[in-house]
Amino acid sequence: MQTVDTLEKEFKELLKDQDAYREALALVQWDLRTKIPEKGAEQRSEVIGFLSQKMHQLATSDKMKHLIDQLKDKTTNNVLQKSLEECELEYKRSIKIPDAEYKAFVTLRSKSESVWQKAREDNNFSLLQPYLEELVSYNKRFATYWGYQDNKYDGLLHLYEPGMTTEILDTVFEQVRTGLTKLVKQISETKIQPDENLLTHHFPKKDQENFSLDILKKMGYDFDAGRLDETIHPFAIGINPNDVRVTTRYDENDFRMAVFGTIHEGGHALYEQNISKGLAQTPMASGTSMGIHESQSLFWENFIGRSEAFWKEHFDLFHSYAPAAFHTLDFSDFYTAINAVKPSYIRIEADELTYCLHIMIRYELEKSLINGDLAVKDLPEAWNQKMEDYLGIRPTSDREGVLQDIHWAAGDFGYFPSYALGYMYAAQFNNQLSKEMNIEQIISSGDFSPIKNWLTRHIHQHGKMKKPLEIIKEVTNEPLNATYLLDYLTEKYTKIYDL
Amino acid sequence: MQTVDTLEKEFKELLKDQDAYREALALVQWDLRTKIPEKGAEQRSEVIGFLSQKMHQLATSDKMKHLIDQLKDKTTNNVLQKSLEECELEYKRSIKIPDAEYKAFVTLRSKSESVWQKAREDNNFSLLQPYLEELVSYNKRFATYWGYQDNKYDGLLHLYEPGMTTEILDTVFEQVRTGLTKLVKQISETKIQPDENLLTHHFPKKDQENFSLDILKKMGYDFDAGRLDETIHPFAIGINPNDVRVTTRYDENDFRMAVFGTIHEGGHALYEQNISKGLAQTPMASGTSMGIHESQSLFWENFIGRSEAFWKEHFDLFHSYAPAAFHTLDFSDFYTAINAVKPSYIRIEADELTYCLHIMIRYELEKSLINGDLAVKDLPEAWNQKMEDYLGIRPTSDREGVLQDIHWAAGDFGYFPSYALGYMYAAQFNNQLSKEMNIEQIISSGDFSPIKNWLTRHIHQHGKMKKPLEIIKEVTNEPLNATYLLDYLTEKYTKIYDL
Repeated sequence: MQTVDTLEKEFKELLKDQDAYREALALVQWDLRTKIPEKGAEQRSEVIGFLSQKMHQLATSDKMKHLIDQLKDKTTNNVLQKSLEECELEYKRSIKIPDAEYKAFVTLRSKSESVWQKAREDNNFSLLQPYLEELVSYNKRFATYWGYQDNKYDGLLHLYEPGMTTEILDTVFEQVRTGLTKLVKQISETKIQPDENLLTHHFPKKDQENFSLDILKKMGYDFDAGRLDETIHPFAIGINPNDVRVTTRYDENDFRMAVFGTIHEGGHALYEQNISKGLAQTPMASGTSMGIHESQSLFWENFIGRSEAFWKEHFDLFHSYAPAAFHTLDFSDFYTAINAVKPSYIRIEADELTYCLHIMIRYELEKSLINGDLAVKDLPEAWNQKMEDYLGIRPTSDREGVLQDIHWAAGDFGYFPSYALGYMYAAQFNNQLSKEMNIEQIISSGDFSPIKNWLTRHIHQHGKMKKPLEIIKEVTNEPLNATYLLDYLTEKYTKIYDL
Repeated sequence: MQTVDTLEKEFKELLKDQDAYREALALVQWDLRTKIPEKGAEQRSEVIGFLSQKMHQLATSDKMKHLIDQLKDKTTNNVLQKSLEECELEYKRSIKIPDAEYKAFVTLRSKSESVWQKAREDNNFSLLQPYLEELVSYNKRFATYWGYQDNKYDGLLHLYEPGMTTEILDTVFEQVRTGLTKLVKQISETKIQPDENLLTHHFPKKDQENFSLDILKKMGYDFDAGRLDETIHPFAIGINPNDVRVTTRYDENDFRMAVFGTIHEGGHALYEQNISKGLAQTPMASGTSMGIHESQSLFWENFIGRSEAFWKEHFDLFHSYAPAAFHTLDFSDFYTAINAVKPSYIRIEADELTYCLHIMIRYELEKSLINGDLAVKDLPEAWNQKMEDYLGIRPTSDREGVLQDIHWAAGDFGYFPSYALGYMYAAQFNNQLSKEMNIEQIISSGDFSPIKNWLTRHIHQHGKMKKPLEIIKEVTNEPLNATYLLDYLTEKYTKIYDL
């Protein structure tokens, strides 16, 4: 029989091997989305397949099972114990799906993604419908394999937000939805009309880049352990604990894309850069959930980056990079314009206030699909109706309606709520932070380190060692509470729109 | 018993797996030398170790041995047959060195590289001496393990230049050495003094980059299957057949570094970009030897890139990027300056004419070391003496003498001759090409495609399917012949220096 010491050593080695595959794969993904020449991508996709398969083989290997069985609850090393639990979860999830079924699902998903491209181009939902029907069936079965207590949808939700349940979501989402629809309606009835055209003067890419770099530095992003590159769909990626990269996109006629995009991805990156180095090369060395990750990006993008104090402090810096056309802007007009609220069809273009409503719609629809309360064929109509109910606008085509996101076509159900959870978590953290320090004063000082350090101490450093709801509870002394988001948005937008 | 069909399928799968590791590793290497943030490198080096080990495991696996044994000389697929031969060579080489010995060698080499850094900084050969002594012993033993016919040095030379022998090298190198030392002496006695200061006006990096990009395009480098980035020690790398990247280095006070460096690496890249796609994901999909690879980079850098016709054709383009200080340059002064000959201590800074003499010195010394005719302790003196004999200058310190290159300190013996072979191969190809077309006229037309296509047809497309000496013979209808290099250099420099 092997001693705990020997088993621990073996387990650490196995984790290191897994992590080496993960790191290589992360670099390949970064390169694929930032640097790869057009023709290089085809063969590279085989490398992605190969490395993913190797990771999967390790995760489901007999050796992994042996180590989980022999070492779990026997090791006194807390990081290894949590890693064993995480590995066990992944092991069980993987082996519960029969190999042939999973392979068929992967093939279907890949086909469905291309069909989605075409369906969206042609504005033709019926092309995608049979694929979606099959993908929903698969997801229903997966939820059953993986198990759930009350609601089948929970079986999928757990993948992205461990510990979260449909029951919790139903409560908080309804509260948020009710509050937001009321606010949006109020705003639509005011006379105040922010002029977003003020913001769309030409702004050269290089100057936007330099401004973005300055802001990232001020946020405390470590450029010796990261870099900023250009891409089409911005993302942040932790390649290793000391190599966490940010990407952004430049629109020379709308600097908001790059600047707010960079701050958003910078928030994700700060999380990954500040995970305790003691967790390196274990599954614990990453953000604890999609929702908590999103809370970090949204906190920086909105609570800091769209605040009055932030732009007051950085208006001179902004002008030092911005072309002459921006120099005559009135600060108050500028601040109102970057916080303009306007119901729109496309989620990724939505403002801070209406964004969550887009998520509610998707959450309610995918929950109904998984529970069999809605048929795929009825999805477009249901989508349009909810848009009208919550946002007061009705898409005139499926392209700007149900076909806009790739998630469902890629077989992902249960992911969308993370975005809205991120807003709620961020607001709850923000409320706690404001009890402990004067946030506005810190922003005005231009030195964000007290904020960054607070986030690191309470959230970042723990990586996956604490579950999302555990973090919320420990940091804010109460469970998830949607009131903070509503209060924050009500206060901010009442002031801007003089409600 | 397995059928040939089944074995072929299995072998192809194994080659694909190997190639996936190779591709991931190539991307990691590219990133490490171009993009990685400082702190990210430490953990990344573990990924390099891991992926290298995996490749090595496949190369020496029982499965590989089985496939070689069962399939070699039985397959009728020529690419697979050559791949089997290549795999067998690597398999035999690997298993001949006892595991413990190889591991000790790798550790020693790694230590020795750091000691070399310090020895060079401190100008203290005695620090490195004991390491070099051990490394020479290892290499002697490796040469014996791997086998040779006449000269122990051949056992190492074969690694880099399959089929090449000390016997051939001794003959051609002596011829080149004699011719070159005579030429260098003649030049040192002429009154013509090129003024290199003409070239060292400030030239902004961005403009150098744009000029380099234009030249790469004109060479026929495919930017849809590659890219140009900045680095400290320039290189080209084939990540996959459709992703072959070039790197360069900019010195704003000497544009020659970037421009000739880019053309040089572009020559390597053209080779890799134009290997037949039918060889992809096999060991055949790479350059056939270090020497032939170097012939391609040197052909473009010197025979094309330093020619009078090239600069006449591109002088306007050059001026369109170069600052005003370059605009008044007389063409003939410019052309003479970029071909200035001056014996110097440092190999990588040497001109076209003296470069080969630097290689001869290294070749003669490392051959003596491996054959036991020279003791490591006598190396510095022997180095300095040969510098004086061949170049007429004597280093005043080991830093600018025997300590300048990392190769020996990294345990690499047998590599240096490739550089000089590249010059000879290039001259021999150039001679053949000039029989088939008017090179000068093609350069003057600004459309290099006839040259690029000739190189692809005769050299590039074959990848590793033909051995270096086989290519030389087939393309030029004779064996390696050093006369062409001497004739070319004599003609060119007689004209420039009015000898």
